[in-house]
Amino acid sequence: MAEFMTETEQPSPAVPHPGTAGERQGRTGDSAGPLDGQEAAALLERTRDLVDPELRAALESLPGSMRRIALYHFGWQHADGTPASGNAGKAIRPALVLAAASALGGPAARTAALRAAVAVELVHNFTLLHDDVMDRDTSRRHRPTAWTVFGSADAILAGDALQALALRLLAEDPHPASGPAAARLADCVVELCAGQHADTAMERRAPGEVTLDEALAMSEAKTGALLGCACALGALYAGADGEDVAALDGFGRQAGLAFQLIDDVIGIWGDPRHTGKPAGADLEARKKSLPVVAALSSGTEAAAELAQLYGEAHVSGDAEGIARTALVVERAGGRDWAQAEAADRMARAVQELSRALPAPESAGGLLALAEFVTRRTS
Amino acid sequence: MAEFMTETEQPSPAVPHPGTAGERQGRTGDSAGPLDGQEAAALLERTRDLVDPELRAALESLPGSMRRIALYHFGWQHADGTPASGNAGKAIRPALVLAAASALGGPAARTAALRAAVAVELVHNFTLLHDDVMDRDTSRRHRPTAWTVFGSADAILAGDALQALALRLLAEDPHPASGPAAARLADCVVELCAGQHADTAMERRAPGEVTLDEALAMSEAKTGALLGCACALGALYAGADGEDVAALDGFGRQAGLAFQLIDDVIGIWGDPRHTGKPAGADLEARKKSLPVVAALSSGTEAAAELAQLYGEAHVSGDAEGIARTALVVERAGGRDWAQAEAADRMARAVQELSRALPAPESAGGLLALAEFVTRRTS
Repeated sequence: MAEFMTETEQPSPAVPHPGTAGERQGRTGDSAGPLDGQEAAALLERTRDLVDPELRAALESLPGSMRRIALYHFGWQHADGTPASGNAGKAIRPALVLAAASALGGPAARTAALRAAVAVELVHNFTLLHDDVMDRDTSRRHRPTAWTVFGSADAILAGDALQALALRLLAEDPHPASGPAAARLADCVVELCAGQHADTAMERRAPGEVTLDEALAMSEAKTGALLGCACALGALYAGADGEDVAALDGFGRQAGLAFQLIDDVIGIWGDPRHTGKPAGADLEARKKSLPVVAALSSGTEAAAELAQLYGEAHVSGDAEGIARTALVVERAGGRDWAQAEAADRMARAVQELSRALPAPESAGGLLALAEFVTRRTS
Repeated sequence: MAEFMTETEQPSPAVPHPGTAGERQGRTGDSAGPLDGQEAAALLERTRDLVDPELRAALESLPGSMRRIALYHFGWQHADGTPASGNAGKAIRPALVLAAASALGGPAARTAALRAAVAVELVHNFTLLHDDVMDRDTSRRHRPTAWTVFGSADAILAGDALQALALRLLAEDPHPASGPAAARLADCVVELCAGQHADTAMERRAPGEVTLDEALAMSEAKTGALLGCACALGALYAGADGEDVAALDGFGRQAGLAFQLIDDVIGIWGDPRHTGKPAGADLEARKKSLPVVAALSSGTEAAAELAQLYGEAHVSGDAEGIARTALVVERAGGRDWAQAEAADRMARAVQELSRALPAPESAGGLLALAEFVTRRTS
């Protein structure tokens, strides 16, 4: 989850893109189709307009010491406490909560689900604060991470406070869905923790020791779980039955995995002019991202070469070495696999969604949002 | 909260001890009065019997990676995952939940409040896991702390998971008090975070820069808040009205402050044969505990001497220097103040309790537990 939605605007890395259940949408140039990114962008903007006042009110309720760190993390204050214009992220998760509520229960459900949307965003940001401490990441949303500014202890405490705030919002919500939603969100937190644990544990192991199934399970727990939970909470607030809630959870999970696959492709082959990161940053960090694990477990000659490269000591700024490693991952089939797998996961996401919403037109913003996170053109 | 209830059996450091509302209990030798520690010991044992199965069931529901760390932290597993006899602490907080429920609502309320008791114990242990990481404490309940065994990242994650588990228990509880209880527990977590922040911030400041009011406010947030919350949750499950819930919260807070004062006295003048720590451990660590801050702000000659001693570089194992420092704190009135303040806080606790329970005999185990945590004879 650490890497999710924190990056600059990026063009699609030429990923073969799935449409809705076998029916590809026109996608050339500025086509005004519903899935061309404009609908998603509008949805995200509307979500920020709805969510931000509630989110800020929740943060303002914190004691001064915690509020300061939280407002910095969300981009609403500079480190010295003066107001900042803000870059609180793209609000994908709250947008999924609201879109799911709307798709299954109409505008009234969407309005009712606002606190749940804020709670999900708070949980997401609690995990970002903690993951940055654990991973020693120094930059997020183009600013120094909170722990680099306030110290690890305060970043941990602010994360703890945001988790509490999230569950408090639901505990105070008189809506009948708030109890099941809180239980589900708490379960999701536990899954996110297990996912982050698996990620750090994987990174410590030798390149050849990580299986693709493990890497996929880790990504599902670390990235898919909260997207699934966001959709499930929206469904709960729409009064959906258990099967529909599970279908929405499945939709979010699979879309989340598709996103992670694309994010990992960008982490290797993304254009630094768009990603804001040096080319092949993930390779330089010897990260066992999904394309790398796929390449390592491909049984090809290139796999053995990659294992050797990954076993070598890290050389900082070795652009030639990174380019060579990227080529080896590609020769071992890591890029093709990731792109095909992303397409497959998107297809599964659409399939899950159709269990709860058989008519594609009723899926509302959900498909647009899923397209958005996997296409990354806006 | 880091230091609370983690220590060996300790004798009372000759604290002037308050009885119930002006009426001192006989307290010589093995007197069998209700407040001689036997009632509290029996209550705590019964609480462990009730709470442990639920607590273990909650921990068993965690994914393997998180379960392992949690079971180690609670003393139920060794680091290698083999079963351990367990030392999960004295269960003061769950005992307060159950005693408060029982005092205000009888046996049925006590039974109903069991999940809340487990939730409070989970929150307490989440904060211990995180505080140990932040404070770099290496020992807890006579065992290496979780972060020294599993690393900081895993200890942070296990703490996160325990917070989620606590709020999930309440979210799933069909009892009408569970929503208000969850909101209150989440608020308490935020207060605990602010308290821990204040503690670490205070420790970084120069000795003369910390006021006694600040130190007391920090202790109230860090130690008093969760004891108050425990009592308040018990009251909520007994169906008490807002005033009685507030009174129970006040009782727990004041008793928690009394405890912290006594704990701080022990941290300086405690007998190492009983505390299991070297004499004057808090002084060696230059900790700004309550007696030290009181001494520093006493305006006496000894205060100036203490400020100078605290400003000097720490010398490890300098028994003579520590003994001299302890004497200076005492000469500056730090010990007397702490003992008098503890007695005053206990009197306030009893007063708060009498607002909700005018007849002392109906206070049940609450007074016995408050006496227990401040007397520390068993």
